[in-house]
Amino acid sequence: MTTVFESKHVQDLLHRASGKDQKDGDPRFKEIMYDLLSGLFQTIEKHNVTEDELWKAVNFIGEASPELGLIVPGIGLEHYMDVLMDEADKKQGITGGTPRTIEGPLYVEGAPLSQGEAVMSDKEDDGEVLMMEGVIKDTDGNPVPNAMVEVWHADTRGFYSHFDPTGLQADFNNRRRIQTGADGKYKFRSIMPVGYSVPPNGSTDRLMKAMGRHGSRPAHIHFFVQAEGYRHLTTQINIADDPLVYDDFAYATREELIPELNRTSDHAEINFDFELVPNSDAVRYELSERKRLSA
Amino acid sequence: MTTVFESKHVQDLLHRASGKDQKDGDPRFKEIMYDLLSGLFQTIEKHNVTEDELWKAVNFIGEASPELGLIVPGIGLEHYMDVLMDEADKKQGITGGTPRTIEGPLYVEGAPLSQGEAVMSDKEDDGEVLMMEGVIKDTDGNPVPNAMVEVWHADTRGFYSHFDPTGLQADFNNRRRIQTGADGKYKFRSIMPVGYSVPPNGSTDRLMKAMGRHGSRPAHIHFFVQAEGYRHLTTQINIADDPLVYDDFAYATREELIPELNRTSDHAEINFDFELVPNSDAVRYELSERKRLSA
Repeated sequence: MTTVFESKHVQDLLHRASGKDQKDGDPRFKEIMYDLLSGLFQTIEKHNVTEDELWKAVNFIGEASPELGLIVPGIGLEHYMDVLMDEADKKQGITGGTPRTIEGPLYVEGAPLSQGEAVMSDKEDDGEVLMMEGVIKDTDGNPVPNAMVEVWHADTRGFYSHFDPTGLQADFNNRRRIQTGADGKYKFRSIMPVGYSVPPNGSTDRLMKAMGRHGSRPAHIHFFVQAEGYRHLTTQINIADDPLVYDDFAYATREELIPELNRTSDHAEINFDFELVPNSDAVRYELSERKRLSA
Repeated sequence: MTTVFESKHVQDLLHRASGKDQKDGDPRFKEIMYDLLSGLFQTIEKHNVTEDELWKAVNFIGEASPELGLIVPGIGLEHYMDVLMDEADKKQGITGGTPRTIEGPLYVEGAPLSQGEAVMSDKEDDGEVLMMEGVIKDTDGNPVPNAMVEVWHADTRGFYSHFDPTGLQADFNNRRRIQTGADGKYKFRSIMPVGYSVPPNGSTDRLMKAMGRHGSRPAHIHFFVQAEGYRHLTTQINIADDPLVYDDFAYATREELIPELNRTSDHAEINFDFELVPNSDAVRYELSERKRLSA
């Protein structure tokens, strides 16, 4: 049975709608739009999507703009980009290095800079003290001096500074940049973060519920690690004993990124070395361009 | 060569991201999301879409919410829904009737109501007078009494009341509801509309330019026609001599919807009958549910 999608009228519509019959425009973008529209049109026909459903979806997208940074990881898309980059590396014979994982939407540019070690949290009166340290190494195991380790994480309520709906955190609380010395070492003292959930009844929450899913992340700590001559690393580590460690709504968990957690009577310790891969002309890897808050 | 998309990891990701491993949620929605994500993921891999490109697209979508009502017709999607409904009708053996075409985003509920005939425009001092009339008929050619003909169109600058950036139009200018009497006749006097273009440098305009396309519509007049026992009709007629009549960025033009235009020295005339199809239990057809302005 031929589909409406395959009809000459609709194929012609797709051709025109993606500008393929025009000499102007960006040829690559036109091809991408053509394929995206083709997938969308086929799915609509396959499921007999109604006008009412279409407009409900359009309305959802229109309202979702403040939460697109959560929806992109929530639908697995941000993780998928990582998987594609992993595969591209493999094809280029690039191995080793700490695995990348998603950035998430809550990075803020301009955190305070420390040399070698930092105190991350403004207040230490609640929550468990967390000491984390390690070495920035190259793929031969040698320390990388002058590396920049940028760290950010949530507080004990799961809120990030600059995105805290209660307004209780100072700017850049739990956000620091640490520059390594000749030994490549970094170290910070902070307060153990907890996981967080997407805003209740927001676009992401409603999307997740419609699919029977939750919108929660296990406790984690974000990192950018960069040094001259090495590939930019965007990654996270998980707090090993969080019950959601393998059930992250954003799919950021990776086996190599769950370091051992050592608890003493008065604090927790994590030791984690980051391994950076040299930048090559074949596959350069810089921090992606995306809209980021800057303060 | 196997693709990353086909890998177990990504297939599993898609399964989880669309909630197919969850017992809760809406089963139909999960299947639709699974297919939409599959198409999106495949297109990304096929074209090696980069992180930078992804975030540019996400950013675009985030900014586009005020113009989604223009983008949906601009990418051919609103017309595609019409084509699918036409085909569904054909399969049900439903023939005849004035063809449907897209509603567009500029309808406003609550226009002034007239019996049989209406004057549409507040000011007649500029532009060509347009007289349009006809009969609402059933598929046997009999007049349909008590039909409601709702008409809306742009002014001589291509602006619609309630969406006029200059603020120069009164509410409901060029918007009327006309109820037919026993003879099924409707008639209105108005000022000839011109076509319009999407807002310069807005989301739709930038999207169209990236595909080498324009964002202009030929002059047209919108109609809802409804009567008890008949299917709701959403349609438009084109002004026959507009140079873009076959090059509408919204793909709304249909051959049967370009009535003859008769020009005299002081006005233009269009005669056009609308044919309504009886509603059947098999395929009911009501006005779609979408967000509409109400005044």
